[in-house]
Amino acid sequence: MTVLAIVGATGAVGESAIELLNTACFPFTDLVLLASARSVGKKYKVLDQEYTVQKLDSDSFQNVNVAVFCASSQIAREFTPIAVNHNCRVIDNSSAFRMTPDIPLVVPEVNRETIGNSMIVANPNCSTILLAVVLAPLHKQYGVERVVVSTYQAASGAGKQAMKELEQQARDFTNGEPYDTTVFGRQYLWNVFSHNSDVDMETGYNEEELKMMMEMPKILDDENIGITATCVRVPVIRSHCESVSLTFNYPISETNLLNCLINSPGVKLYDDRENNQFPEPILTSCTNDVLVGRIRHDLKDPKSFHLFLSGDQLYKGAALNALQIYNLMS
Amino acid sequence: MTVLAIVGATGAVGESAIELLNTACFPFTDLVLLASARSVGKKYKVLDQEYTVQKLDSDSFQNVNVAVFCASSQIAREFTPIAVNHNCRVIDNSSAFRMTPDIPLVVPEVNRETIGNSMIVANPNCSTILLAVVLAPLHKQYGVERVVVSTYQAASGAGKQAMKELEQQARDFTNGEPYDTTVFGRQYLWNVFSHNSDVDMETGYNEEELKMMMEMPKILDDENIGITATCVRVPVIRSHCESVSLTFNYPISETNLLNCLINSPGVKLYDDRENNQFPEPILTSCTNDVLVGRIRHDLKDPKSFHLFLSGDQLYKGAALNALQIYNLMS
Repeated sequence: MTVLAIVGATGAVGESAIELLNTACFPFTDLVLLASARSVGKKYKVLDQEYTVQKLDSDSFQNVNVAVFCASSQIAREFTPIAVNHNCRVIDNSSAFRMTPDIPLVVPEVNRETIGNSMIVANPNCSTILLAVVLAPLHKQYGVERVVVSTYQAASGAGKQAMKELEQQARDFTNGEPYDTTVFGRQYLWNVFSHNSDVDMETGYNEEELKMMMEMPKILDDENIGITATCVRVPVIRSHCESVSLTFNYPISETNLLNCLINSPGVKLYDDRENNQFPEPILTSCTNDVLVGRIRHDLKDPKSFHLFLSGDQLYKGAALNALQIYNLMS
Repeated sequence: MTVLAIVGATGAVGESAIELLNTACFPFTDLVLLASARSVGKKYKVLDQEYTVQKLDSDSFQNVNVAVFCASSQIAREFTPIAVNHNCRVIDNSSAFRMTPDIPLVVPEVNRETIGNSMIVANPNCSTILLAVVLAPLHKQYGVERVVVSTYQAASGAGKQAMKELEQQARDFTNGEPYDTTVFGRQYLWNVFSHNSDVDMETGYNEEELKMMMEMPKILDDENIGITATCVRVPVIRSHCESVSLTFNYPISETNLLNCLINSPGVKLYDDRENNQFPEPILTSCTNDVLVGRIRHDLKDPKSFHLFLSGDQLYKGAALNALQIYNLMS
């Protein structure tokens, strides 16, 4: 008997949550869709029932048991205390509470046991989640010392308007029109650029990279693991990819590594050398698993492996992970 | 007094060479444009003079002093011995002779002294060249132990048809047509995929990766440097990017690293943290320098640095590098 609310229901992550609720994998007794004033009245069908978006305000959580926040950090900071005061548990997709010591940061395949009775559970950053489902089982079984990751991130991470802008630029190209660059302030089509989050002036890392580097040790419950990220946007509509180099504490065999990944939940091996078939974002779009392939030993260092993964940023990287947590809480 | 021939003049690299000859930076007394039968008769203007493409055959090199081959390995293997028999020196863009012990593999900024009187000089792989101009000065001055690189490679590396196919897919998207996938056999627009070269069944590395890993030690004249590459195509028309992690033999300071790069020929620092301006392929398209930015210390390992570079695959990655060698030979 759980009343579920989706906060920010009309955004890219909120709408992904609604799509996933339609799979009937995340049962609820009633559903409340919440958003800002300008989206009020918008209707969504979930499992043959129509729901109308309501305005998010301080009364929104009175009869709600669990709220999945798919909104900004600012909204999360403002409304989470209100929800909790109404005895509504919160799963927050923003970065507001991720590094708060007493708030669990959860990828269900990795550390579901940390949820406990927490009133607030934080959903990690999208790139972090996708890497965590692959990294955690390897780290648990064999001990990873160092991770170097370079990302290939889609427009979806920046929201619906970003996805639309990229598509529009393809139309602008076709029609010989100047590019609309409202969201990113630069040409995205046919381009690659460093992630658009702010760059720390002292270290040179951008916020997206720092999220991966700080959240992963918390998820793995290991402050010693050394993670470095280079986060880059590529002209892809949805689903991120990551090129990952792992250095283990000790040499391990390819067979052991493959067996570990084959037995890991949320991971699907997709590594066909003969036919050159490896993870691609168009293959993982709107799917739940993280595809992993290009698995190969470093030719100089028997402790190091390299691999390439792809996963849907809006699903496993955000809405799906949050709803998996919801199932564990309800 | 040098008669220069361009073999494969009508391909993407050949036409780039012709563009660069128009800058008047690469002097010649006469120019011979050579290609296969189907391109014969095509005309190009170079420095106000019109040149007509002639058929490549065994008589093509009789009066030629230097031939820049911008063709396949097969063409290189067939016609290089013929050219050399006519006392014509060859600069070859293909992979045919790169790993042949007595044939120099040259990036002029790095190892021009190896050219000597060689009749054949090999031009390295495009991704290798772009990395070499950044890596070599750092390695020479401070000693690099290990390099991990993930590439973001453009369509240009696969030739003119590949570039056209990618552009056509944007039109197909706009017009709601099915994608033309003749060249790559898969959707390229909005996608990222592992480099389309053959994958070695035993090690899992593809040919593009193995080129970088084998050519770089030869260029740097150091078999001990450990290079690992993950080569990936992104939907970009021209200019490659590379995310590079370097581990030095000893800790070095950011200031020393920056000073070294600022003083390196062919490299341009482009690293504006405040305004989030870093190397992008649209910024390096049709330019000569390799842009490098995102330079930052590893937060856990004082011996490691991370950086991001971009360079024009057709210019510095191919035609420009070959013509720089030409200037040194003529």
